[in-house]
Amino acid sequence: MQIIHNKDDIKKIRQKHFDKKIGFVPTMGCLHLGHLSIVEKSKIESDITIVSIFINEKQFSEGEDFDKYPKNHEQDINLLKEKNVDYLYIPNSQEMYKNNHSTFIQIKTDDIQVMCGKSRANFFGGILLVITKLLHQVQPDYLFLGEKDFQQFFLIRKMIQELDFNTKAFLCPTVREKNGLAMSSRNNYLNSKELEKASMLYNSLLIAKEKIIQNESCYQDIINEQIKILEQNKFIIDYYELRNQNNLKIVNNISEYIDSRLFVAVNFNNKCRLIDNIKL
Amino acid sequence: MQIIHNKDDIKKIRQKHFDKKIGFVPTMGCLHLGHLSIVEKSKIESDITIVSIFINEKQFSEGEDFDKYPKNHEQDINLLKEKNVDYLYIPNSQEMYKNNHSTFIQIKTDDIQVMCGKSRANFFGGILLVITKLLHQVQPDYLFLGEKDFQQFFLIRKMIQELDFNTKAFLCPTVREKNGLAMSSRNNYLNSKELEKASMLYNSLLIAKEKIIQNESCYQDIINEQIKILEQNKFIIDYYELRNQNNLKIVNNISEYIDSRLFVAVNFNNKCRLIDNIKL
Repeated sequence: MQIIHNKDDIKKIRQKHFDKKIGFVPTMGCLHLGHLSIVEKSKIESDITIVSIFINEKQFSEGEDFDKYPKNHEQDINLLKEKNVDYLYIPNSQEMYKNNHSTFIQIKTDDIQVMCGKSRANFFGGILLVITKLLHQVQPDYLFLGEKDFQQFFLIRKMIQELDFNTKAFLCPTVREKNGLAMSSRNNYLNSKELEKASMLYNSLLIAKEKIIQNESCYQDIINEQIKILEQNKFIIDYYELRNQNNLKIVNNISEYIDSRLFVAVNFNNKCRLIDNIKL
Repeated sequence: MQIIHNKDDIKKIRQKHFDKKIGFVPTMGCLHLGHLSIVEKSKIESDITIVSIFINEKQFSEGEDFDKYPKNHEQDINLLKEKNVDYLYIPNSQEMYKNNHSTFIQIKTDDIQVMCGKSRANFFGGILLVITKLLHQVQPDYLFLGEKDFQQFFLIRKMIQELDFNTKAFLCPTVREKNGLAMSSRNNYLNSKELEKASMLYNSLLIAKEKIIQNESCYQDIINEQIKILEQNKFIIDYYELRNQNNLKIVNNISEYIDSRLFVAVNFNNKCRLIDNIKL
């Protein structure tokens, strides 16, 4: 595995492998089995796999965890070597953003103003920006993203389509701990007791899904009941919503259930933000 | 010369000529000698030259001349054939923009809020969007733009640098009528008498430049004098300004003259907008 630090060098990789299918897995590092399953998907679909590790300051807002976001480069490198990744790209942040960086990507629809886009002011603007830059630098044929961050996938795919990028985005299934908790680098903020308790989030989604499918009552009542239970257990709810996965609009009637997802985001134990979603 | 109408086909041209340098000249058609000199520059610098003709609705604002913008495809095609252009790309507008298009490029600095960016609400947003899409579709090594639209060149070059596009932008000199009037498709709105009178604009720039260089008086007084003369001759001034060409800021002292340009935009005879600029 070759490690690359600057953008001119990563651009040369595309030229070198002009006739190969390049798969790209952008990450913020501190890799877990979720990332590694995405890497495996890229290894299957592509001739060459490039993984990037970059903690993208632009997607964090004031008061968020940019400064303490977990890092573990040494372990990350070993894990990626084991997976036979071809190139690891670790851009340096000075090269990524000049001090006076001023060009941004903007999606002007409701779907960017809801859920994580509503709670986190810079989040999707920062993500669309860094993905645009990385796509231009890496020039991959395929881009692999995780299902846990479904809204992120949804918006990146929209940007790719509307701006005619030469890259196809793939959604890779969420990988979970044995107890059901979705894997996330932010789980590193939690101790073992908290990790156990945090699994309530996924279990709540499963229960809500089951009840909604069985149409026990108005789905909003079912969600409200789940919110109440979570709140009693130190989960502060940011959102808990049923949305159509094709347009991220709130589901209004039962005929849409087939294309919908339950989305949840919480602040857990005053320690970290957790998000999750499941398809109905 | 092969004529291409859809984006999948133009993307294949890049694949076909993966080892060649592709030069790209985006236009809105109704070609004149200014465009053709840009095409010649591309022919010299590149192995393959692609010209596009697309009247980009997104860069026009309400009340502007999108509906009546001059078109002359037949003549354009003949002119480009004579120049041995390799590919002419005429995208259809339905394929370029879906009805609900929502992704945009935004530059958040003062340089986009001045001059044409101040007067024309959608102008640069629309241009940055269409150039982004065209760069993704055509994937050129070189992009050739005209000096008459210097602010456009400035902002596109900034976007290319900050988003890491794999394209280098070249500035090509303004081509002028014998009387000095900068060539522009919008000159088609004028009759021969008006074309003669419109040349006052360039002459005014030359006079102002001469006087400023000779440092006859405060440069703003020189510009104000020129504005007065133009206004007496049916030019309604949008802006007439001396700006540093490296940052588009207003020039404040004489030491900056070497890097500055005089920029002017007018509504002429209530018939069309004319812009021009010269380096000091």
